[in-house]
Amino acid sequence: MNKGRWIWYPGDFEIYQGLLQNLSREERGVNWPAFWRIDDCRKNVKFYKEYTLEQDTVFTVHSKKTGYIFVQGKKLPFGKPVSLQRGEYRIEVYCGTAAGLPAIYIEGEVIYSDETWQVEDYVSPSVGAGTSPYYVRKEQNPEVWEYEERICLPSSEEAKEGGVLYDFGEELTGMIKLSFRGEFRPILLSYGESETEAKDTKRCYYSQMVYDQEEEIPRRAFRYIFIPGVEEGEISLTAIHQYVDIPSIGSFRCENERMNRIWKIAETTFKLCSGVFFIDGIKRDKWIWSGDAYQSYFINQYLMFDEDINKRTILALRGNDPVSQHINTIVDYSMYWVISIYNHYMATADKDFVTMVYPKVKTMMQFLEQQLDQQGFIVGKEGDWTFIDWADIDKEGAVCAEQMLLAECWKSMVKLSDLAGEDGSIYKEYYKDLTANINYYFWRPELGAYIDSFASGNNKVTRHANIFALLFEIADEEQTVSILKNVILNDKVDKITTPYFKFYELEALCIAEKYDEVKQIILDYWGSMVDQGAATFWEEYDPSQPMESQYGMYDDPYGKSLCHAWAGSPIYLIGRYYMGVRPLKPGYEEFEVAPRCASFEELECTVPVKGGTVVIQYEKNQLKVTTDREGGILRVEGKEVKLLKGETTVLPVTH
Amino acid sequence: MNKGRWIWYPGDFEIYQGLLQNLSREERGVNWPAFWRIDDCRKNVKFYKEYTLEQDTVFTVHSKKTGYIFVQGKKLPFGKPVSLQRGEYRIEVYCGTAAGLPAIYIEGEVIYSDETWQVEDYVSPSVGAGTSPYYVRKEQNPEVWEYEERICLPSSEEAKEGGVLYDFGEELTGMIKLSFRGEFRPILLSYGESETEAKDTKRCYYSQMVYDQEEEIPRRAFRYIFIPGVEEGEISLTAIHQYVDIPSIGSFRCENERMNRIWKIAETTFKLCSGVFFIDGIKRDKWIWSGDAYQSYFINQYLMFDEDINKRTILALRGNDPVSQHINTIVDYSMYWVISIYNHYMATADKDFVTMVYPKVKTMMQFLEQQLDQQGFIVGKEGDWTFIDWADIDKEGAVCAEQMLLAECWKSMVKLSDLAGEDGSIYKEYYKDLTANINYYFWRPELGAYIDSFASGNNKVTRHANIFALLFEIADEEQTVSILKNVILNDKVDKITTPYFKFYELEALCIAEKYDEVKQIILDYWGSMVDQGAATFWEEYDPSQPMESQYGMYDDPYGKSLCHAWAGSPIYLIGRYYMGVRPLKPGYEEFEVAPRCASFEELECTVPVKGGTVVIQYEKNQLKVTTDREGGILRVEGKEVKLLKGETTVLPVTH
Repeated sequence: MNKGRWIWYPGDFEIYQGLLQNLSREERGVNWPAFWRIDDCRKNVKFYKEYTLEQDTVFTVHSKKTGYIFVQGKKLPFGKPVSLQRGEYRIEVYCGTAAGLPAIYIEGEVIYSDETWQVEDYVSPSVGAGTSPYYVRKEQNPEVWEYEERICLPSSEEAKEGGVLYDFGEELTGMIKLSFRGEFRPILLSYGESETEAKDTKRCYYSQMVYDQEEEIPRRAFRYIFIPGVEEGEISLTAIHQYVDIPSIGSFRCENERMNRIWKIAETTFKLCSGVFFIDGIKRDKWIWSGDAYQSYFINQYLMFDEDINKRTILALRGNDPVSQHINTIVDYSMYWVISIYNHYMATADKDFVTMVYPKVKTMMQFLEQQLDQQGFIVGKEGDWTFIDWADIDKEGAVCAEQMLLAECWKSMVKLSDLAGEDGSIYKEYYKDLTANINYYFWRPELGAYIDSFASGNNKVTRHANIFALLFEIADEEQTVSILKNVILNDKVDKITTPYFKFYELEALCIAEKYDEVKQIILDYWGSMVDQGAATFWEEYDPSQPMESQYGMYDDPYGKSLCHAWAGSPIYLIGRYYMGVRPLKPGYEEFEVAPRCASFEELECTVPVKGGTVVIQYEKNQLKVTTDREGGILRVEGKEVKLLKGETTVLPVTH
Repeated sequence: MNKGRWIWYPGDFEIYQGLLQNLSREERGVNWPAFWRIDDCRKNVKFYKEYTLEQDTVFTVHSKKTGYIFVQGKKLPFGKPVSLQRGEYRIEVYCGTAAGLPAIYIEGEVIYSDETWQVEDYVSPSVGAGTSPYYVRKEQNPEVWEYEERICLPSSEEAKEGGVLYDFGEELTGMIKLSFRGEFRPILLSYGESETEAKDTKRCYYSQMVYDQEEEIPRRAFRYIFIPGVEEGEISLTAIHQYVDIPSIGSFRCENERMNRIWKIAETTFKLCSGVFFIDGIKRDKWIWSGDAYQSYFINQYLMFDEDINKRTILALRGNDPVSQHINTIVDYSMYWVISIYNHYMATADKDFVTMVYPKVKTMMQFLEQQLDQQGFIVGKEGDWTFIDWADIDKEGAVCAEQMLLAECWKSMVKLSDLAGEDGSIYKEYYKDLTANINYYFWRPELGAYIDSFASGNNKVTRHANIFALLFEIADEEQTVSILKNVILNDKVDKITTPYFKFYELEALCIAEKYDEVKQIILDYWGSMVDQGAATFWEEYDPSQPMESQYGMYDDPYGKSLCHAWAGSPIYLIGRYYMGVRPLKPGYEEFEVAPRCASFEELECTVPVKGGTVVIQYEKNQLKVTTDREGGILRVEGKEVKLLKGETTVLPVTH
């Protein structure tokens, strides 16, 4: 009958799971908690709901925590059925705990727990209870994520360098099980995302001596396992791969097999990094980074369209009030967080989520406001990390790229406040004033570009702020043309070196309609990783480096993550720009399909939209678009056609 | 070698233990978490210290939590010895946890953990680590309080009303162990602080069916156990009494055996309520109430002089910043908390504690300030509880007694800010303005008394504000005389009905030098409980009520706590007023001994002072005072004599 679901204070489930996530990092035998304040959830809450019972009924409150039911002036214990006769009742459930998440599950035909219950934390007014589609059975424990599991065997096993190398043929996040042909003896497990790493038993990121056959070996990311000092056939390995099963909706095929392969590997990569939360990489850091997550939301929108992982990640990143530091300590990451809320709304039209999270958006903006200078520019304070990118950006005083993000925050606030039923005219003013000041202080007509810092007097131009000026539409038409010429397409300006910012740069190039160029970059850069045998895409890649130095990063010989979420950006770029699918109204109530297929000879691509899909088929001179969703508008070569739900629109095209 | 001690973020140990305490209440088979926000400790902290090593050394970090050591650019795991050669080092230890208290113990000859280590929470500047004298061994777990244990057997066992009644002869906080002469069979344990309660198996506060011989029976407060349906001799009972061993320093004997008995029972009562924290009662609520604790600090000062339990209680009550609600939701309780800090300093001269807690005092005062009206009066907001006392106080608008507490807060702030090296002149202004406003708005010359509320227009006079006016020296000499005549000694003004406020009233009577009267009240009120067979003193007592209704309170037939901390006030009154011992300078650097023994024929009393004791012996016409502490001044009958350390001063007195 399962009508109930586990309920808690909204956001607390995600905050608690986020705490677990940010404490889960391991490196060479040490545990490495994230280096910022990590919030925990509330420890003491009270649920209640009023019922008018038309007939007698029975309910049972289940909880792993401390507390009681209060009804008809009586305190009653958890775990025992409570019978009520017809009539009016206010049922209260008090729940506290010294560790973990206060949560309850009410089982009953009429009285059961769901988001219609109210919850309060004794401080703020009551709010609707939090739930998760993953926790709907009383036997569950919402403190423990229930991963899907798949048993994996090595695809090859080879005696090498005095031991045996097991290749699972794919990246996994799994627990190793050992089976000895003969007697158990202590052995060393040496893990690698690459063969090189696994064989480097002294320096690899994960390794473990196993002293006891019964020992539980922690869940770790790897493709290769090397066991030194054993013979082939002596030990059989099994891996239990654990994952969150979020199905792909998007798909892509074209005439270019290299591109198809890139898309598939990007998909694999991204899905491995999509667990309880969007994490940066599966080997490292396994932390929830706001900047990384911000990019993941975009890829998600064009691959899985999973709203729940967005919400989980957004809530975990933000933690509880008050805001005591920037998200991940990074000023820009706080701002990506704010912007992501409206982006999520635009994709999903989930007004309930906006309503729930809006108070936290406001306190975040208040936190940011404390750091504004007289021009309304945000400036990092002691302990803040003004990141933007691993690049030589002039960060003296107010940094231009940060102001572009801030402007986008104010723009989001205009819309979010409106959704929350508040007057947001002040945010409009802030946006207007800030963009005016950005142009006054940072725009250099003589350079035709935005500079990083006016305080330093260096007039340094980097790509970052100029890319944001395009993405966030701060540059006007004339400035856009100038930026493209003087910065984006100007080889003399320092190149973007990280795939993180390459995400935005390629997007800017798409805005500049450099479709052939972007396609070529994807084929070259990502394709080159494929050439190197990559089963997943890497955190960073410099094709000019020799293979033996490809695994190092952050002064660590195996510090580079070889399965990194942001490397999945081709999925976003293809869906958003080549297929041209985007919502025009929140939740795709109206959406645009504006394919630019000229770079391809033929293709078939499925792009998710809220509540449906768009299938785009293209071959020379013909475009077919099919959608099971109302509201689509096909725009191609100056033509505009209304897409009809369930029908295929066929259109001749000139290229 | 035990040089180390467990360290944590200061205050976090107390906050975590306080969370456990406030979740520990049980009532008739249900767990009853406190009905306010309960803070938990930080979950992620970083310890560090710099060392200049003159020789090679080894240290080991122990922790039950997640984290690593960072030294010489390397991450090292917990639990394994780290060797360092002579040289300069900065040693960092990162420690996080999803549940409980992040804490470490560093074992080593040179490098070991103590309060000289710094700790930070990634948000605030680093501070000295927190420690406890109770956690000095690596084998310990600071999440688990290590109680002392004493095995107790019933003093009598009697077949009664179809079962057996076991009387332990004293109140205990213990775990029951059962031993069956024959085979085990399921039985009901029915607990009572009184025999009546234990025998009332349906309505008693604690009862439990024991279905399994191996079942661990929770720690509970009781004196009597009744087991229905069993025969005498069938079951042997043992109780493992758990307590925190805080020795008494104070003692008292006089010619009046009734008074001696009262003092001893007050001692027993108070010590039972002095556990990890000062709690209200041992059966109920077992919560940490700030108003109750405030009185306990005074009794402690004259009985055990245990500084650590004061500090534990003060830190647990306050929780973490930001202040989101009043302590225990009660406006007056927030203010008692502030006042207690300076009182603690006055008794102990513990400047380190003031320095550590001062930031939290300031944020508490800022929280209070948000609620001030134009006159500087504090007024409760929605959700606040303006308590003062269970009495018919006119609580419309600003309530006089609350303003008296606020004035005492400002007075404390003058001194605390000075200790913290801050300019406190603003607090002096606040104090001056507030007391002027109190006198302007609340003093009614025509009544010769302070009224509760001027907003209501009722001009109601209760004892409460007028008592505070004396205790906090807000009334001038003329007003004091008037208050004594018109309020305190005026039978027409509603009587104080709770022992909680009787504490303050008796103190006011002592200030009015009504020593014989106060002595008689003690003998009558407390003595009457002794006559009723009390082994501990009760939360409340009305001698005019029949015995059968003595156990009820709060609409609960056994809701009254029969072992309640505040009932220990005779110890304070005797030490503070009859023995007249009090610090004149912080930490008793200078202290007064001003005995008023005329109400007694002879007595011998030991009163603790910081770092020593004062022994006062009195018999007709002679007073002997001995102290092992410098700084004492004996004042009696207009004479003033300097007390010499280690010597006995003998003085003739006229009474």
